[in-house]
Amino acid sequence: MAEAKKLSGAGLRGQVAGKTALSTVGQTGSGLTYRGYDVKDLAAHCQFEEVAHLILKGELPNQAELDAYKARLKDLRSLPQALKDVLELIPKDAHPMDVMRTGCSMLGNLETEEDFGQQQDATDRLLAAFPSIICYWYRFSHDGVRIDENTDDDSVGAHFLHMLRGEKPSTLHEQTMNVSLILYAEHEFNASTFTARVCASTLSDMHSCVTAAIGSLRGPLHGGANEAAMDMIERFTSADHAEKEMLGMLERKEKIMGFGHAIYATSDPRNEIIKQWSEKLAKDVGDTVLYPVSVRCEEVMWREKKLFCNADFFHASAYHFMGIPTKLFTPIFVMSRLTGWAAHVMEQRADNRIIRPSAEYVGVAPRTVEPIESR
Amino acid sequence: MAEAKKLSGAGLRGQVAGKTALSTVGQTGSGLTYRGYDVKDLAAHCQFEEVAHLILKGELPNQAELDAYKARLKDLRSLPQALKDVLELIPKDAHPMDVMRTGCSMLGNLETEEDFGQQQDATDRLLAAFPSIICYWYRFSHDGVRIDENTDDDSVGAHFLHMLRGEKPSTLHEQTMNVSLILYAEHEFNASTFTARVCASTLSDMHSCVTAAIGSLRGPLHGGANEAAMDMIERFTSADHAEKEMLGMLERKEKIMGFGHAIYATSDPRNEIIKQWSEKLAKDVGDTVLYPVSVRCEEVMWREKKLFCNADFFHASAYHFMGIPTKLFTPIFVMSRLTGWAAHVMEQRADNRIIRPSAEYVGVAPRTVEPIESR
Repeated sequence: MAEAKKLSGAGLRGQVAGKTALSTVGQTGSGLTYRGYDVKDLAAHCQFEEVAHLILKGELPNQAELDAYKARLKDLRSLPQALKDVLELIPKDAHPMDVMRTGCSMLGNLETEEDFGQQQDATDRLLAAFPSIICYWYRFSHDGVRIDENTDDDSVGAHFLHMLRGEKPSTLHEQTMNVSLILYAEHEFNASTFTARVCASTLSDMHSCVTAAIGSLRGPLHGGANEAAMDMIERFTSADHAEKEMLGMLERKEKIMGFGHAIYATSDPRNEIIKQWSEKLAKDVGDTVLYPVSVRCEEVMWREKKLFCNADFFHASAYHFMGIPTKLFTPIFVMSRLTGWAAHVMEQRADNRIIRPSAEYVGVAPRTVEPIESR
Repeated sequence: MAEAKKLSGAGLRGQVAGKTALSTVGQTGSGLTYRGYDVKDLAAHCQFEEVAHLILKGELPNQAELDAYKARLKDLRSLPQALKDVLELIPKDAHPMDVMRTGCSMLGNLETEEDFGQQQDATDRLLAAFPSIICYWYRFSHDGVRIDENTDDDSVGAHFLHMLRGEKPSTLHEQTMNVSLILYAEHEFNASTFTARVCASTLSDMHSCVTAAIGSLRGPLHGGANEAAMDMIERFTSADHAEKEMLGMLERKEKIMGFGHAIYATSDPRNEIIKQWSEKLAKDVGDTVLYPVSVRCEEVMWREKKLFCNADFFHASAYHFMGIPTKLFTPIFVMSRLTGWAAHVMEQRADNRIIRPSAEYVGVAPRTVEPIESR
């Protein structure tokens, strides 16, 4: 075998591992684009279902296409009984990302993607079913309630909130979910998406690729930063208290989640958007603690460390103001990022070569097996 | 962001994506080594459990260590009732790799790896439980039998055959399983292992990493070649018939599975080993068709295309002679390769940086959102 080329950076950082037409991250002139559109433009003017249509099918829908796509997703919300039975077998103290991973995998047994001609159908089904999966398990295991996973809500975000809380959400809450799902939908070759592409490169099925990606997003270095941010900010009783505690954490060199980014250098374009919505929600609920605490955390981290809030930080307070349990923050990420994962799987399939890098060998020299008696 | 470096080959072929002390593939002087030992040496002198110990813990065990490790694995064969309930909910016509993926994922809900101090325990549990998982589902869905997943068999291979067929296997069958599990145990940065490492790089849990790897191995470009080889050779009624049919397939440029390899150039070191065991089994069952057919296929492919049999080709006939249903061939691969996957996860964790490459953008230029009325 020819000597393999060594890469300069660990973790393939800065190395091109493939092509994509789906997004740009941190390139000059715009922070984050989906198929050419700035995420700020999309978050200001579109519904999540429009953005899902854009990412998965290439173009924003017109009104008739959007209506049809939303109606289709609405029709796909029911879970098969065998999947509900599995969700009832998962204990209350399970990790919610394990529930998502298992729910996706189980659905693959019941509604297998038999050939790639079914890839859009399999994706639409997951897009519609993920809110049902997490809410069905959550409400059954925590409240002993078997929810009806068919609501008459118009959007994925409202449907999720409705099932979770048992009542139709306000317009403000629906709008916030909409923006949040748009912001998390796609982010180039992040670790979970790259996991999905490596899996797709063996020509495996959609459920395997998405299940694999959920497993990667579960890791604390990837998803879960908004949950960690929530755990921190809810300990602070005021902005001044937050400042004092954060300065202590910085002095003790403790890891503070929700700040900085592997690719963005000076700001995360998603932060200013979700921050606005967190502020609206704070006013709506009459909050005088959590939002001011969050703002002070942002100021301290920038002043002391020149670290900016990433997408996750103000998501923590925003979700909290809507009454979403912290442990369900990362599953919402799944409900959204599915669009990016599936689109990357489709892109990988369309121009595939199996992803099979080499390794630098750093192990022991050749040796021979000693008989077990003389070991 | 600095301009990312472009890689020369698609699929990261020939590019070093990390370090490993676990194996070498296709390097000068030896075809395949696990921690410095030639796989031929290991297959000739070791039990699979010794090799699992080597791969996972770094060294071949002495007799006391081997006895303890085998006793430990024997103790871990029982499945939790909730997992058995899930397996009973998976229909007979499900893809067996979807069953493995779901079984692994479900176990992660019930016995979550809470911290990395549990990584060896989680791995041992999976090593012991995978044969139980696939056999429990198979026998229940196909035969309506709830098997006892506790046998008194001494080895993983014998335990699997015993549960599958309902009787203790012969020594020859146990030995063949042993060799087969050794041959499939580890193979550097193949696609499923690389999937597991990308997942591990987010610091996710062991069940997520293994579940992800199963999803990748399911793809027809990766696992499943032995099943495809079986589907082909069982159509041939004699060596001459095989030759005639293969020449036709070659002329029509049909894909023939079980030959050639992405890394090996002139032979797969695993082939000559499993071929010997296939021959022994052929004699044992009095076969006069399948083994001669397989040998002729090998001759034709080498003569016509200079393509050699890879590890998968003679595995097909070997498994078939032992009465293993073709659809369970790839799950056996999982039972074995788990050792490599888990060892790579441990290695990644020990010196981690999140695996997050970049992509070359090939999409549309920046554009602005048109109001939906004017689309």
